Formats: sequence, C-alpha cells, structure tokens
Amino acid sequence: MIFNFIPKEFNFFDLFDKQIDCAVEAATRFKAIVKKGAVDEADLKAMKDIEHRGDEAAHTIIDRLDKSFITPFDREDIHALAKELDDIADMVYTIINRLKVYKVTDADKNLVKFASIIDESVHSVAVAVKCMRSAKHSGSVVKACVEVNRLENVGDDMRDECLAELFEKEKDPIKVIKMKDIYQDAETVLDICEDVAHLVGSILVKQA
Amino acid sequence: MIFNFIPKEFNFFDLFDKQIDCAVEAATRFKAIVKKGAVDEADLKAMKDIEHRGDEAAHTIIDRLDKSFITPFDREDIHALAKELDDIADMVYTIINRLKVYKVTDADKNLVKFASIIDESVHSVAVAVKCMRSAKHSGSVVKACVEVNRLENVGDDMRDECLAELFEKEKDPIKVIKMKDIYQDAETVLDICEDVAHLVGSILVKQA
Amino acid sequence: MIFNFIPKEFNFFDLFDKQIDCAVEAATRFKAIVKKGAVDEADLKAMKDIEHRGDEAAHTIIDRLDKSFITPFDREDIHALAKELDDIADMVYTIINRLKVYKVTDADKNLVKFASIIDESVHSVAVAVKCMRSAKHSGSVVKACVEVNRLENVGDDMRDECLAELFEKEKDPIKVIKMKDIYQDAETVLDICEDVAHLVGSILVKQA
Repeated sequence: MIFNFIPKEFNFFDLFDKQIDCAVEAATRFKAIVKKGAVDEADLKAMKDIEHRGDEAAHTIIDRLDKSFITPFDREDIHALAKELDDIADMVYTIINRLKVYKVTDADKNLVKFASIIDESVHSVAVAVKCMRSAKHSGSVVKACVEVNRLENVGDDMRDECLAELFEKEKDPIKVIKMKDIYQDAETVLDICEDVAHLVGSILVKQA
Repeated sequence: MIFNFIPKEFNFFDLFDKQIDCAVEAATRFKAIVKKGAVDEADLKAMKDIEHRGDEAAHTIIDRLDKSFITPFDREDIHALAKELDDIADMVYTIINRLKVYKVTDADKNLVKFASIIDESVHSVAVAVKCMRSAKHSGSVVKACVEVNRLENVGDDMRDECLAELFEKEKDPIKVIKMKDIYQDAETVLDICEDVAHLVGSILVKQA
Repeated sequence: MIFNFIPKEFNFFDLFDKQIDCAVEAATRFKAIVKKGAVDEADLKAMKDIEHRGDEAAHTIIDRLDKSFITPFDREDIHALAKELDDIADMVYTIINRLKVYKVTDADKNLVKFASIIDESVHSVAVAVKCMRSAKHSGSVVKACVEVNRLENVGDDMRDECLAELFEKEKDPIKVIKMKDIYQDAETVLDICEDVAHLVGSILVKQA
C-alpha cells in the first residue's frame, strides 16, 4: 500500500522533553557544584554525560526532520528549538569546565545566587516546552515564558552587581579575569533560556 | 464583505522610522555622555527609556507581521530588519551601562572619537532606512550604505589603534580589562550598523 | 527564443573552490607566521590580500544567487555556505591582526600546535567542499566532515590545556589577557570549520 511509503509522524515532543530534561539535570547539578564550591572529576564526567545525552536527542530530531513529511509545527522552528534547547546544557557545561580549567575552588555566594536563578529559569523553560503538546495548556506556556523573561532581567541586574562588586573588591587582576568570564557565562545561560521562551511563544502564536 | 476579513497593509515603514529614530537618539546621547566623561543616573534612565521605546516598535512590527497578508517586502527581511535595528540602541545602552558598572569616570579622547564615528554611522543608517520607502530614492539608500561600510572599516582601525595604545600605555591591568571591553563594544555598534546596511542593500536588490 | 531570458546555471562550485582555496592559503600562512614567532608587515599585507580575494568570491556568489533561476542546491544553503566559508579566512586574519595589535612577538609552542590543527581542519574542509560537486564522492565528503568534527574536539581540549597552563605559569596579567584572546580566537577557527562541515553534511543529506 502506498501509505507504507509515507513515514509516520515522528513524535518530536518526546525528544524535546528529553532535551529539556537534560537541561534541567544540568542546572540542578550546577547549583549543587557551586554550593560545595569546586568542581571535581565526577562532576565533570556527569556533566559531560548529560550534555552528550542532550546532544543525541538534538541529532535525532534533526535527522528525523529530514525524513518526516508531517511535522507538528514549522520545520525551521523545530530545527531552531532543537538547537536552542541544546545550547542550554552546552552553556552550563561550559561554565563547569571553565571552573575546572581556571582552577576556581571557591565559587562565591554570587555564583550560588546565579545558579539558583538559572535553575529556576530552566525549570520554567521545561514547563513551557512540556506544555506545548496541547493547545489546552497554552496558558501555562505563556505564564512560563513570562517568568523566563523576568528571570533574564533579574540575571542582567545580577551580572551587573557581580561585576561592579568584583571590580570594587578584587584587587588581583587574574582573579578578575577569571570571575568576569564566569559571571558572563552564567548570564548567557539566562539569555539562551529567553531565546527558547521567545521561540516557544512565537510557535504558539502561529498555531493559534 | 469578505475583504473586511483581510487586514489592511500595515505601514511597517513608520515603525522602522521609529526604531531608527531611537537609534539616532541613543547615538547622540552617547556622544554627549563620553564628552562629559562619565555616566550619571539621568543618562542611564534616559538611555533605558530610548531602548525601551525602540523595543516596543520592534515588538509591534513582529506582532503585525504575523497578522499581515501583504508586506512591503519579504517577511523574513522585515523580521531581520526589526531585529537588527533594535540591536543598535541595545548595544549603545550596553556600553553606557558598562561605563557605569565599571565605574569609568574619565572616558578618554579615543572613546570620544569612537562616539563620533558611531553617531555618523547611525545617521547614515537612518538615511538608508528612511529612503527605503520609495524607489526613486534608491540612489540615496546606496550612497548611505556605502558610507556605513566605510565607517565600519574606520571603526576597525580605530579599535586596533585604541587597543594598541591601551596595551602600550596603560600599566594597570584592571583598567586594561575595562577599556578593552568598552572599545570592543564601540566597534560592535559599527558592525551592527553594517549588518543593517547589508540587509537594506539586499532588500533593495530584490525589489529592483 | 524564450530560453535566452533564462540565465544559465551559474557555476557556484567554482566560487566555493575559490573561497576554500583562500581559507587554505590563510591557514598555511598562519602556521608559518607562528612558527617564526611574530607578524611582520608583509604577513599582514598578504593575509589582508587573501581575505580580500575570499570576500570577492563570497560577494560574487551572493550576487549571482539573486540572479539565478536554477541553483545546485537550496538558495539559503548556498548563501550560508558562502558566508561561513568567508568566516574562516576572516577569523585567521583576526588572529594575525591581533598578534600585531597586541605586539606579541613570541608566539609560543601552544600556538604553533594550534596552527597545525587549524591547518589540518581547513584542509579537510577543502576536501569536503571540493567533493560536493559529484554524488560519487559523497563518501569522501562524509569522511572529511567526520575529521573536521574530530579536530574541533581536539581544539577544545587544546584550548583548555592552553588556558590552564597560561593561568598557572603566566604571572603577568597583561600577558594573560593577550594570550587568552588569541587561544580563544584559534579555537573559534575550528568552530567555524565545524559549522561548514555540518552545513555541507546537511546539504548532502537533502540531495540524497
């Protein structure tokens, strides 16, 4: 029968869920790491593993996209969403790796605060992504996206405060160089979350 | 009548004008701020307000784009132009904010020069954007775009000179860190202006 | 005859070849420069010239794209490939220029190693791009793309090692600032090569 030639609709939502689960796992672990103050080999291995699983989900999405006739929403939006969700765990891994490379062994209270904001934001992104499946949850999607935007603004102010304090109190230029990079990376995670929220929001508008 | 269901063509040009007016205002104020040497709270508030107005115009464009059947040029070009015009005032705000966060209170003669180049470039972008409305002004568009490209090259050289001088004369590493960021931000404004000019140029070619 | 109105298919592949030849030339010269340890005016002029030739090829591609009815693959993929190939030589030029601006006169053994990896990666990109012309060479394209991905990972580790060593051994913060930028730029070249490989890979999949 001819219909056998038409691939069945692939369930992209299951893979987006996998991606955001990885991002949530990464954010949670990041919070735990900065609380104890330093990265050890086990943390790095675990984060690498999380990032790798997220990567696999992203690759599967892109791969299936090329083979699917029917997609739940615009092909390019699926592509962009897979890419941006991937960027979350990637960026968290970048920070963890930087803490190791820069041999930062006393993550400060500011970074702990930052990790909490990131954790909150990634959890809101998870709500937005998971509620995309069904039109009846569009209210939850919108609410979650608004929260992600709010946290991005909180993150901007947080980074400014961190940098102002760093330049005021830290007299060792090498330490300034290191922590400046790390605070900026932390803020970038929130920017990426906001990008995802914007994309999810615009997908919702198109479907309405 | 069925035609009532078809939204009228929205005047996107008016909103692009609003966006570029904000960018011009931002560039003008930036020039004034670095001339007096430091940012005060009133400057920051005014810049935040300019950036906010530009943001609103961009959001309106994106919003109307989803609801319009007829657009003056490619939907994705409209989207990209709204986004890139928004980036100009955003980036100027970033510099102003950085001057405050880094507590730079003596913007140097190099930054004053940079602010003048930025001001010139943004004014040329304004000519290009405002002349897009009518085919008979395409000569002015092209001329303005060429000028923006020229100024981007001037900016590249300017940044190189600024950095070379900074590394040669400034012995305080903390000050090097601060001014290096600020010079690079300044050059980024000119890059964004060039992106806008490229986009406007390619829209013109497609319409010809 | 009506067919006279239809522009002949332009040979985009010849121009992609020109672009990648420029990138190879840039990578080769970069390797030679860091081996001798410093940039002189002749190097800078030569690199500027290479970058300029690559730029011209990119512009010709974009220009012809607007005028061609028939293209060997998706218009937006052609556009993206031209842009990304251009980025390779641009980024190599950025490093060379930075070495001059920062007055680095003793490029270290780490940078020499980095330049070798970049040279290998760009050569693999060249194989991938040149083998795109014919379906029968798709095996070579895939093999080359895998190699580019591998070298990007090597580059990531290389950058981490370089930065760790820099922060450990270099006590002069100004030198840390300079070399940190240069190592990161070097790694960026490998990222760009990977972007090209991904794009070439996805073009191949669509054609299959």
